[in-house]
Formats: sequence, C-alpha cells, structure tokens
Amino acid sequence: MQPRASLLIIGDEILSGRTPDKNLNHLARFLGARGIALSESRIVGDRHQAIITATRALMAQYDLVFTCGGIGPTHDDITTEALAEALKVAVIRHPEADKILRDYYAEKNLDYNDARQKMADVPKGAGLIANPISCAPGYRIGNLYALAGVPAIFAAMLETLAPNLPQGARTHQISIHTTIGEGTLASGLRTIEQNHPSTSIGSYPHFSAPPDTHGSGVAVVVSGLDADAVSATADAVEALITELGGVAKR
Amino acid sequence: MQPRASLLIIGDEILSGRTPDKNLNHLARFLGARGIALSESRIVGDRHQAIITATRALMAQYDLVFTCGGIGPTHDDITTEALAEALKVAVIRHPEADKILRDYYAEKNLDYNDARQKMADVPKGAGLIANPISCAPGYRIGNLYALAGVPAIFAAMLETLAPNLPQGARTHQISIHTTIGEGTLASGLRTIEQNHPSTSIGSYPHFSAPPDTHGSGVAVVVSGLDADAVSATADAVEALITELGGVAKR
Repeated sequence: MQPRASLLIIGDEILSGRTPDKNLNHLARFLGARGIALSESRIVGDRHQAIITATRALMAQYDLVFTCGGIGPTHDDITTEALAEALKVAVIRHPEADKILRDYYAEKNLDYNDARQKMADVPKGAGLIANPISCAPGYRIGNLYALAGVPAIFAAMLETLAPNLPQGARTHQISIHTTIGEGTLASGLRTIEQNHPSTSIGSYPHFSAPPDTHGSGVAVVVSGLDADAVSATADAVEALITELGGVAKR
Repeated sequence: MQPRASLLIIGDEILSGRTPDKNLNHLARFLGARGIALSESRIVGDRHQAIITATRALMAQYDLVFTCGGIGPTHDDITTEALAEALKVAVIRHPEADKILRDYYAEKNLDYNDARQKMADVPKGAGLIANPISCAPGYRIGNLYALAGVPAIFAAMLETLAPNLPQGARTHQISIHTTIGEGTLASGLRTIEQNHPSTSIGSYPHFSAPPDTHGSGVAVVVSGLDADAVSATADAVEALITELGGVAKR
C-alpha cells in the first residue's frame, strides 16, 4: 500500500506566470522514492478563502497534505492564518520558532521586527520543520505540512522532515521507447493492460514540429508495486513493439 | 474587468514526477497577455471520477476552463469520456475530425484504426480546435477548452483559438529588485498596499544556499489594471527602499 499525498501550491506569482513552479515535480520524485503517491495538486493565489477551501478539500481526501508558499514576513504571506482557520485552531506564536528567529536576526544585526516575528506564528498544535537556509521554519500539524515556496528552501525542508514521513511500498517502473506511432500500439497496449491488472501502462508521445518530424516517438511506461509483474508487462510491451515491426529501447 | 480562467492538468506522468509540467506557466503568460486572469489550477491523474469532479468544480467557478492531457489514442486517454460525463452529454464521433484524421493517416500510409478513430470523438456539441502539429484536434464546448498535453501541441492549439478568446483589461506590472531583506521592507510594503488599494504588491525573496549568501534579495512586484496607479505604487516602493538605505533596480 502507498499513502496518498497532495500538494497545495499557494502564490499569485505561479498563476501570473512570473515564476514557473518547481516544487510539484520535486515533491513528486521525493515522495515517489519513499513509496508515497502524489495523487492531486492544486494551485491557488494569495487569497484567504481559496486557501481554506482547497486545504479542507485535500485534507478530507488524502493521507498527507503539503503546502508551499506564503509563510514569509510580508502582507501577502497569509498561509498560516488561512491554514489555522481551515483547521479551526488559533494562530499562536511558537516559543521555539520565536527563539530561533530572534537569535538568527541578532546574529545578523537585523531588527527582529513585527514582520519577522510573524514568521514564528503557527496554527496551535503545530511542530516545527527546520529551515537550514533562511532559518524561518515550516511546520507540521497532523497530516498537514506547511513548507516554504522558494524551491531551495522547500527542498531543504523536505530533507529535514524525511525521517518522519511514512514509508510506502515502492513503485517499480520500466520505460520503453519506440518510434512506432501511439495509434499503432494502442490496441495491443490496451490488451496487455487488461491481461496484467497489477500493473499500469502509460503512453507518452512526443512530436517534433513540422517540417522536422523524424524525432517523433512514444515512451511506454509500465509501473506497479510488484517488480516481477512490472517486468513481465514490460516484456509483453517489448514483444508487441517487435511484432509490429518496431525497435524497443529500454 | 478580467475574465477568470482555470487549468485542469490531467496526467499520471505529471504527478509521478516523470514529466515536469510546462503548460501552466505557458498558459498563465498567454492569458495574462490577453487580460485574462488564471485564477486556479488543479492537477489530477488519469482517473475518471477525479477528472469529472475537478471539471465540475472549476466550471462552477470560472469563466473559462482549460484542460490539457488525455485526448490521445491509447487506453489511458480518458479525458473526453470524463468531460462528457461532467457535462452530462454523450460522446459522439465528430464528422469533421473524422475526415481530418482519415485524410492525415491516409497520407502517412498508416491504418486509421479504432484507436486513432477515438481521437475524432468529442462531447456532443463541441467545436474543434485545430492541431497543426499532429493533426488530432482539441475541442471547445461552452466555456471548456480541451487541449493536448504535449507542450508544443498545447501551445499551438492556444494560438489557434486565440482570436476567439475574450479580451480583458491588461494587467500592468512593474518589478523592483533590491538586496534589502524582506522583513525590513514588510511593514512599509503593507502600508503602501493599504494606501494604494487599486494595485497589489507581491514580495518574492530569493536566497542563496549557505555559505554563499551574497545573492539573496527580494523582487517586489506591483501590479494592477491602471497603469498610472501601478506607476505611483512602484514609485512609493522605490522611495521606501531608498529610505531604508537600499538600492532599488527596476
């Protein structure tokens, strides 16, 4: 069995196109390596009600909910208030976070002002997730993990909390490339998937723009929790490609 | 006023981390240039009920809903059936799509088999969106636009339908960079935003990983529909940065 996770990405900068998201792909791979399935993601702007609605919807459906973005010191960092309201708990100043931040800014000779103190606020009941880059911590409350949006910090926080995450069954995956058209393979792939119900088959075409069409092809990806079954399905896909006159490359 | 749009990204390959999504950022910029606000995005796997639930939720909230992924010929391409069910209409074979595909495969000397014919299926009432790269069309039905997931085709389909999209008020945006800490700026930025209610201010820090910390800084992004107001707010942000002893770079 695999725990099921979701990611709520919070930030106007992602939806405006100013900043390409990098956290979804990183989290997907990070969780995949631990046998946790990323099953849904939502992206909302810096809007109080939108964050609350999405958080509640995801918490109702998934074993783990990650958020990224909106936990900094400025007026547009509203994640903590929204998550607290989603969870129906108060926002409190976390004593340990307060001390970490106070010491950090003292050492940098920067004023530990109201805005920076706000980064010590968490929904009541939360435990901290250390931030080795810019100090201001993320936090966990129940199955909800609130992480920073800056990709380097998001990734560092994931490493911090990795030992405490559940470990699911590992997904095994084999990719097979061919230049045979997807429509030629489709019927055979469907039959193979039906005959191998413990694995799933994804078919991902890639196209070159005309007039250069020689780069087109398909990646067939077989995945599942049973390594032998994945291997058997992959063998069947290879046999299909060969039978259709193509070359299969793993 | 700006029409509000959303994007539903459909595909196991995005959630597994195999394929980094590129369509969200492209769509955000494409819509932004036309005065349409991308307001939410969801990412779901190749799961019938998940697609239906997300589609209905987004259609209830947004003026335009775009989907990408799952309209190819293979067994894991289930978007059209799910969208039709979400809309409570039948799936029909579109005569024009059928002719386009039949001619395309005849010219390539490829069998126009059942799998390829499936790409001519659309929810009843849909109009086609041309695909200049691999021929199989996307479609529009009401305020729902179903596009391919392959980024080059997704982008080409957007160009195809661009003349028929609504045009909203353009967002004006000015970015100001400084090396002053976000926490030092925060209080002043909050006051400026309160004093300039027709614009919004986003604050986006970037950090270098220790021990190299000289690259840290903040991008302050002022945006709004009134160019003069955006300019006035940006001037106020610049004045704040200067007052705090920093250098502001537009």
